[in-house]
Amino acid sequence: MDEDKLAKQVEFLKLGDLLKFVQRLNTIENSNGERRKETSGEHSWHVVLSALILAEHTAESVDLLRVVKMLAIHDLVEVKCGDVFHYEKNAGTNKKEQAAAKEIFAMLPEEQAAEYLELWEEFEERSTAESRYAASIDRMWPVIHNCRDNGGTWREKGVAFETVLSRNLHVKEGSKVLWEYLHGLITELAGRG
Amino acid sequence: MDEDKLAKQVEFLKLGDLLKFVQRLNTIENSNGERRKETSGEHSWHVVLSALILAEHTAESVDLLRVVKMLAIHDLVEVKCGDVFHYEKNAGTNKKEQAAAKEIFAMLPEEQAAEYLELWEEFEERSTAESRYAASIDRMWPVIHNCRDNGGTWREKGVAFETVLSRNLHVKEGSKVLWEYLHGLITELAGRG
Repeated sequence: MDEDKLAKQVEFLKLGDLLKFVQRLNTIENSNGERRKETSGEHSWHVVLSALILAEHTAESVDLLRVVKMLAIHDLVEVKCGDVFHYEKNAGTNKKEQAAAKEIFAMLPEEQAAEYLELWEEFEERSTAESRYAASIDRMWPVIHNCRDNGGTWREKGVAFETVLSRNLHVKEGSKVLWEYLHGLITELAGRG
Repeated sequence: MDEDKLAKQVEFLKLGDLLKFVQRLNTIENSNGERRKETSGEHSWHVVLSALILAEHTAESVDLLRVVKMLAIHDLVEVKCGDVFHYEKNAGTNKKEQAAAKEIFAMLPEEQAAEYLELWEEFEERSTAESRYAASIDRMWPVIHNCRDNGGTWREKGVAFETVLSRNLHVKEGSKVLWEYLHGLITELAGRG
């Protein structure tokens, strides 16, 4: 019985491994100034670490383990759907991702499949304290990277200042302190033109 | 006060971002059969996910959030020291990694710095149920990948079958079921020569 469950879980984790091949739009930079696009796998690690380290700044009290579970799986659908630019998400992409989530989590033993599908949906809906905090953490690095890069993907894709503000405002619901920090970066960038 | 702590934590997380540039020895493969070495950043995500998904198989009961914290930071020292082949680790590499850990975690606010340095040391020492389980999870993928690759890095580096077994035997202390699974893969590989 344990062996059967383990076998299913290992297959699920092997599929997950493919997230290391999904390229995101965001650019990362090493200490020599070399740059490349990051993968969704490494992004997923960095948001887990960020959620752990910044946990004292949550707007509401959270079950941190649930936050970590959400962040560890929040991008898994991309092994089927690829990474979609935050400002270009629509009902169509949401529907595709929903179908992918059902398919992927169904690989797990029954109870676990239900638990993780719910966590994924909760994250998408930002319907709980945990998902609001997790979503804030997910947004913070694209903002930091784009502000470092003089607009980065916002400039490339022509996203207006007001849209950047409105589409990231929900960070405040997850962490007020974090939002003030990001808001400062965005307005400073806007001030530079 | 909150802003000061946040600023320190963001600097720590920015340094952590460099782990996305540290290349490991292990090879990953996408669905088209394309291959590349994985980075320590993406490995760190995949072990966090693995620990969450396999938690029912722990040998002892564990605080899963502590396991996740350990795995999220277990390779951070590599931003200073690089990845060292498991079978080539010695007192010298351990000493360098210890110094790097002290330096890196000291970037965090004081209490948090102490907490994470302790978690890192605990992981290295495998002195608790959490660290024994975390270490098992850290070992599972190199074994699975090398068995898939007809010996992989073991063959490249000339690591004997007995050494593979003895240096991975501790997986049993973290999860008996997982060890049985890996042991099966290793002995099957040995049977093939």
